[in-house]
Amino acid sequence: MSDGQERNSDLITRTENPDNLESPFDAVDRFLTPNSRFFVRSHYLTPQIEVADWRLLVEGSVDRPLALGYDEIVSMAPTTLPATLECAGNSRGLLKPPVKGLQWQTGAVSTAEWTGPRLADVLARAGVSASAREVILEGADRGPVDKDPSPAGETAFARSIPLELAMSPQVVLAHRMNGEPLPGEHGFPLRAVVAGWYAVASIKWLRRIVVCDRPFAGYYQTADYSYWDRTNGLPSLRPITSLEVKSQIARPFAGECVQAGSHYRVHGAAWTGEGDVAAVEVSVNGGSTWSEARLMGDAVPWSWRLWEFDWQVPSSPGPVSLCVRATDSLGRTQPATRDPDRGTYLINHVVSVEVNVTR
Amino acid sequence: MSDGQERNSDLITRTENPDNLESPFDAVDRFLTPNSRFFVRSHYLTPQIEVADWRLLVEGSVDRPLALGYDEIVSMAPTTLPATLECAGNSRGLLKPPVKGLQWQTGAVSTAEWTGPRLADVLARAGVSASAREVILEGADRGPVDKDPSPAGETAFARSIPLELAMSPQVVLAHRMNGEPLPGEHGFPLRAVVAGWYAVASIKWLRRIVVCDRPFAGYYQTADYSYWDRTNGLPSLRPITSLEVKSQIARPFAGECVQAGSHYRVHGAAWTGEGDVAAVEVSVNGGSTWSEARLMGDAVPWSWRLWEFDWQVPSSPGPVSLCVRATDSLGRTQPATRDPDRGTYLINHVVSVEVNVTR
Repeated sequence: MSDGQERNSDLITRTENPDNLESPFDAVDRFLTPNSRFFVRSHYLTPQIEVADWRLLVEGSVDRPLALGYDEIVSMAPTTLPATLECAGNSRGLLKPPVKGLQWQTGAVSTAEWTGPRLADVLARAGVSASAREVILEGADRGPVDKDPSPAGETAFARSIPLELAMSPQVVLAHRMNGEPLPGEHGFPLRAVVAGWYAVASIKWLRRIVVCDRPFAGYYQTADYSYWDRTNGLPSLRPITSLEVKSQIARPFAGECVQAGSHYRVHGAAWTGEGDVAAVEVSVNGGSTWSEARLMGDAVPWSWRLWEFDWQVPSSPGPVSLCVRATDSLGRTQPATRDPDRGTYLINHVVSVEVNVTR
Repeated sequence: MSDGQERNSDLITRTENPDNLESPFDAVDRFLTPNSRFFVRSHYLTPQIEVADWRLLVEGSVDRPLALGYDEIVSMAPTTLPATLECAGNSRGLLKPPVKGLQWQTGAVSTAEWTGPRLADVLARAGVSASAREVILEGADRGPVDKDPSPAGETAFARSIPLELAMSPQVVLAHRMNGEPLPGEHGFPLRAVVAGWYAVASIKWLRRIVVCDRPFAGYYQTADYSYWDRTNGLPSLRPITSLEVKSQIARPFAGECVQAGSHYRVHGAAWTGEGDVAAVEVSVNGGSTWSEARLMGDAVPWSWRLWEFDWQVPSSPGPVSLCVRATDSLGRTQPATRDPDRGTYLINHVVSVEVNVTR
């Protein structure tokens, strides 16, 4: 276990009601994360949904607005899409100085197989207008928001994605997770899984799909879940979208005692939102020199890749600083330092894990 | 005078250093506001600019980046454009319950004639690329910002406008104001005046024009100077752009004592950002019934229209609630109630002025 927080079942509790539960990243040893160990991010209390009453509404710039029941969704041809979901604030608790927000360590990231119809198939039933540009995904979770400026009344959790992405195989409406019915905390009865994007776009408790002609600038992609990009030096607010390239060490965990002179299997996972993980490098001297790690298994689109590295532990005891960095097939490498324009999100710079070599 | 605040010369001081000075709206009795009485809105201290060192930079998606000196700007063919500028937070101090921000009464609005070359002429010299979509106007004023999320470091005051607007006669780069050299507090040496838009777009101390291909979402059009618009019920953040239709009473001012049984000339101004003011109506009974006021002078695009109304004051003493509302040629009428999605901006609902009829 990587820290001393109380666990709720297999997870580390960050907050309760709403539940924000972290996966123990030091336990990552296979491709799929068991549902009981998949991290949970909730902005509001879990909506209590009676499946007999629930309908998925499809509205906006469509030829035929729809209200689909659960059985209709389940009867549609399913796809099973493996995808790594990472919270846009994963690793926030490692930032120095500390920043506001859930103090995630490295466990707000997990991988599952998501089963259900493609969003594209549902949109095809509704018939998308030629003028459409984006698709808004709205969850049943809602509540007051407190940033300035805030919309009046309660705000539903909602995000938009470009129409082109919505029509691609990258988005499924999942009613099953790792072969089991979708659990309540993961969005029962239906979750829109937007593979390759930060998890904020994978709307849980999906209740409505709105096809729209103008770009949507909802609360959770402007006031929250956004960052500053620069145009000729001038900051411009952008929504958080696809995953940055990132790698993490599962073992050894921070503070772990490692036997002097032994061989230790350093291992972990690496992922990226576009392209594949091309290389993972490990440093056993705080980033001064780097050695290639071995990528395990096959590359799976929009999913993490496990890696391992055989470390010849020094024979003399003392602290050692381990680092890992990934590079993707687009040529992007994790940065060495933090860009402050990212605020409290998109945390993928190289951080070191301090371990103790002991006799 | 409409309130008891201290005056700086002819203006009412809301803050000093930076200076935010309100025009006494009860003094409005002609079309142009004298420079000494024109309201001042400053986000940072006034930049001290040596005109010999100053250059206007034109950059981004242009064929020929420019660095124009003051003399070059002044030698270009000038236009004189009358325009009403209103702060997007004008009338904020009238809101109940109170909200954060400068507590303007009705005097963060004034009208001047602005003289200088058209922005279109400067852009033509630079040659705008076919891919361009927007034009960013950047002032020399800058400083730290404090909203969450905030960009790193100091943020320059900047706003973007659509390319189509930038190429229209609606935008001038003013080096003269009401025939005088542009005063320091109004943006010397150069102010971009975007007629018909809230004054936030009329960038003072203009130092740079950036032509860009992607929509710009700067701090002062997202985190600040924005409001919530609804798409199928879902709030979407939009920048504040063109003026809402609005009218205000200059005299009588709130709390003024009016002679029972007399004839009183109620008068004021009305404006709108698109089209013309089509009608102004006055109510002398708190909005129960309305009578048409007389529009004075001629309609001038993007400028207020003065109006007057002959009021037969009741013969019995007591409080009276006066209201005014305008309708523009697009058919928009000032709303009766406040839309909370507007936050602390776009305050154009009908508000009453309470006066005392006395013997």
